[in-house]
Amino acid sequence: MELDEFSLIRLLTEEKSKLYAGKKGIAVGIGDDAAVVDVPAGRQVVMSCDTMVQEVHFSASTMRDEDVGFKAMASNLSDIAAMGGEPQFALVALSVPRSYTSARLKRLYDGLYECADRYGVAVVGGDTTSSPSHLTVTVTIIGTVEAGKALLRSGAREGDALFVTGLLGGSAAGLHYLLARGKEMGGGDAGGNADAGAGMMDDDKSVNKGDADKPLGAIPHPYRPLVEAHCRPLPSVEAGRIFLRSGYCSALNDVSDGLASEAREIAEASQAGIELHATKLPMDASMTAYAREVGIDPLNWALYGGEDYCLTGTISPDGVEAVQRQCKEAGIPFHIVGTVTSRDRGVILQDVQGNTRALEAGGYNHFRG
Amino acid sequence: MELDEFSLIRLLTEEKSKLYAGKKGIAVGIGDDAAVVDVPAGRQVVMSCDTMVQEVHFSASTMRDEDVGFKAMASNLSDIAAMGGEPQFALVALSVPRSYTSARLKRLYDGLYECADRYGVAVVGGDTTSSPSHLTVTVTIIGTVEAGKALLRSGAREGDALFVTGLLGGSAAGLHYLLARGKEMGGGDAGGNADAGAGMMDDDKSVNKGDADKPLGAIPHPYRPLVEAHCRPLPSVEAGRIFLRSGYCSALNDVSDGLASEAREIAEASQAGIELHATKLPMDASMTAYAREVGIDPLNWALYGGEDYCLTGTISPDGVEAVQRQCKEAGIPFHIVGTVTSRDRGVILQDVQGNTRALEAGGYNHFRG
Repeated sequence: MELDEFSLIRLLTEEKSKLYAGKKGIAVGIGDDAAVVDVPAGRQVVMSCDTMVQEVHFSASTMRDEDVGFKAMASNLSDIAAMGGEPQFALVALSVPRSYTSARLKRLYDGLYECADRYGVAVVGGDTTSSPSHLTVTVTIIGTVEAGKALLRSGAREGDALFVTGLLGGSAAGLHYLLARGKEMGGGDAGGNADAGAGMMDDDKSVNKGDADKPLGAIPHPYRPLVEAHCRPLPSVEAGRIFLRSGYCSALNDVSDGLASEAREIAEASQAGIELHATKLPMDASMTAYAREVGIDPLNWALYGGEDYCLTGTISPDGVEAVQRQCKEAGIPFHIVGTVTSRDRGVILQDVQGNTRALEAGGYNHFRG
Repeated sequence: MELDEFSLIRLLTEEKSKLYAGKKGIAVGIGDDAAVVDVPAGRQVVMSCDTMVQEVHFSASTMRDEDVGFKAMASNLSDIAAMGGEPQFALVALSVPRSYTSARLKRLYDGLYECADRYGVAVVGGDTTSSPSHLTVTVTIIGTVEAGKALLRSGAREGDALFVTGLLGGSAAGLHYLLARGKEMGGGDAGGNADAGAGMMDDDKSVNKGDADKPLGAIPHPYRPLVEAHCRPLPSVEAGRIFLRSGYCSALNDVSDGLASEAREIAEASQAGIELHATKLPMDASMTAYAREVGIDPLNWALYGGEDYCLTGTISPDGVEAVQRQCKEAGIPFHIVGTVTSRDRGVILQDVQGNTRALEAGGYNHFRG
C-alpha cells in the first residue's frame, strides 16, 4: 500500500464522518486519537469484533472487494443482533497488501459503508496498516441495549420453541457454487479453504494482483440468491429488537457456524436439550435444487453450512403466537424448527422419516478460522 | 493454527474472564455473541482500535511474543490516555499463522494480559482466526470519559505551553539497536521495515517458525532502557486523567508518530502555530549516548522517532504551575518543551544555537503502515 492510498482512506472516512457530525450521539468522530459517543440513560454498551482474512474467509474467486467490505460489516452487526442490541458505531481496522490499488480500496470501503448505512451505523474510527501479504479486515461494532435486557444463550427452558429467522444453507451453497465456478474458470485459486491458503500469498500471484477488479460476471439466475446469501448476508437486527422487546425470548444466537452448532451452544449454555425437526428447516428451493445437482444432501448445508446470519433462539410457549404476529407485521421470517427438551436428551434431530438421532457436533466448517 | 490452539485461547480467555465476573461493570463477558457493560451516568464512551502486523510493526529480531502482546495493548491504551479517558474494556482480534505453537500463543496472551491488568482493563471479547502467513493483532479499547470533557487536539491557544510527559526517542533508539543486533546475529531478518517485508512471509522460513521462542538474550545494560522503551511502552493513562481533571489542558495527543508530527497535528487542529525548543526536549542519557555511538543526531530520534507513547499537549499559562505540581505529586514526568504561537508562524524549531527553522513534517517513520 502506497502513501496515497492512506490519504485516500483518510479522505473517504473523513468525508463520510462529516455527514455523521452531531448525529447519532457522536461527540468526537474520525480525526482525533479516539472517538467519543453518548450512551442514552438506561442503556448498556454491547460490543463485539470479528475478523475476515483473505484466503481464509474469502478469496478472489468467491468475493469482490465490495462484498468483502459488506460482509465484514454484516457479520459483526449480526453479533449485536444476536444480543437483541442496537448497533450504532463501528471501528474498521484494515491491513492492506501493497499490491492493492486505490480503486480496490475504494470498493472495499463502498461495501463497508453500504452495509453500515443500511443499518444506521456510523464508522467513527479505525486503523489502516500495510500488510506484507494478504488483506485482513477487523470490524468492531459498539451498540447499546436496554440495561439488563440483553438476550443471552443461557435462558432456554424445557418446552420453549426453537426458531430461525431466515433460510438455512444458502451461504454454504453459494460458496460451493463460487468455488466450483472459480475452478472452472481456471483461477488457480484453491478457494480460500482454510487448509489450502498457505503458500498462496506471494504478491506476484494474480490472486493479489487484482482479479477482484473484474466483476464476478453474470451469475445465472438460479444461483443468484445463493451467491447473494454468501456475499451479502443481511443480519437480523430488527428481528433481534423485536425478540428483546417481546419479553418472550429466552435465548438468542446468530447462525454464523451453522444451526447445529448454534443450537448446541444454546443447549449447553442453558443446560437443556434441543430437538430439531428436519422437515421444519426453512430451505430455499434454489438451495435444495443446487445441492441435488451437485450430489450433496441439502440438510447437511442447512445444519452445518453456517454464515447464514439469520437468528436462532428460543421463545416461551405462551409467547410464540405474539412473536409470530410481530414478526409477520415487520415482514421478518419466523420459523419454528424445534423444541427445548431436558438436558439428558441432548441435542437430537428428528429426521424426515420421524426417527430421532443424536446431532453430530461437526459436519464441515467452511471458511472458519 | 490447529484446533487445539483455538481451545487454548478459549480456555485462557474464559478463565481470565471469570476473574472479572461482576466487576468493572461487566454484565456479559467472554462466551456469548457480544460483551455487555455498564457506563456510569455522566460519562461518554471513548473507543479506539489499532493493529500490529508482523514484519510491518515488529519482527522476530525486534520483539518477543509477550512483547507483541504487551505493546498491542499498550499502544491502544495510549489512544484513550490521549483523550483524558479511562480505559476499561478490550476486545482482541488475532489472526494467527498455523506455524504458531501453543506456547507462543500463550506468551502473546501473557503479554496482552500483563499490560491490561496493569491498567485495570478487562478483556471482554475478541475473535481468533487463522492466517495464511503472518501474525496480525488488532486491539479495540473501550473506555469512558466525563461527558463533554474529552481532551481533543483542537483547543490549543496562542500563549499555551506545550509539554511532554516522558523521554523522547527511546523507542526509536531501541529499535535501531535491536535491528543492528539482529543483523549481527545473522537472523536473515530484514527487520520489519515496511518496505522490506514482502516475500518474507513463507511459512517455511525461520521468521515464522518460532525464532521468538528463543529469548532475546541478555541485552547489555546501557541499551536496556531503549529496548524496554520500544518493546514495553507504558501509556500515560494517569497523566491524561490529571490533565483532564485540572481543567487547564487545552489539547492532548499521544506521541505515537514522533513529537514533530504530534505537535503539527495539534497546531493544525487548533489553527495555531507551535514553537519547539530543542534544548528542552527530554532525552535519556542512554539514548543520546547510543545515538552518538551509531552516528545519528539524537534530536532526530526525539522529534521523529515515534512510539514513545508518552503524552504531548498544551496547558493554558495560568495552569502550568498547578499541573506541574499535580504531576510531581503523582510521580509523572512533566516537561515544558515549547509554546503555542499564532497560526502564521507555523510549526518551528528553535535549535540549540537559538536559531529557528521550520520543522519538517517527515523525518523517517519507522514501522508505520
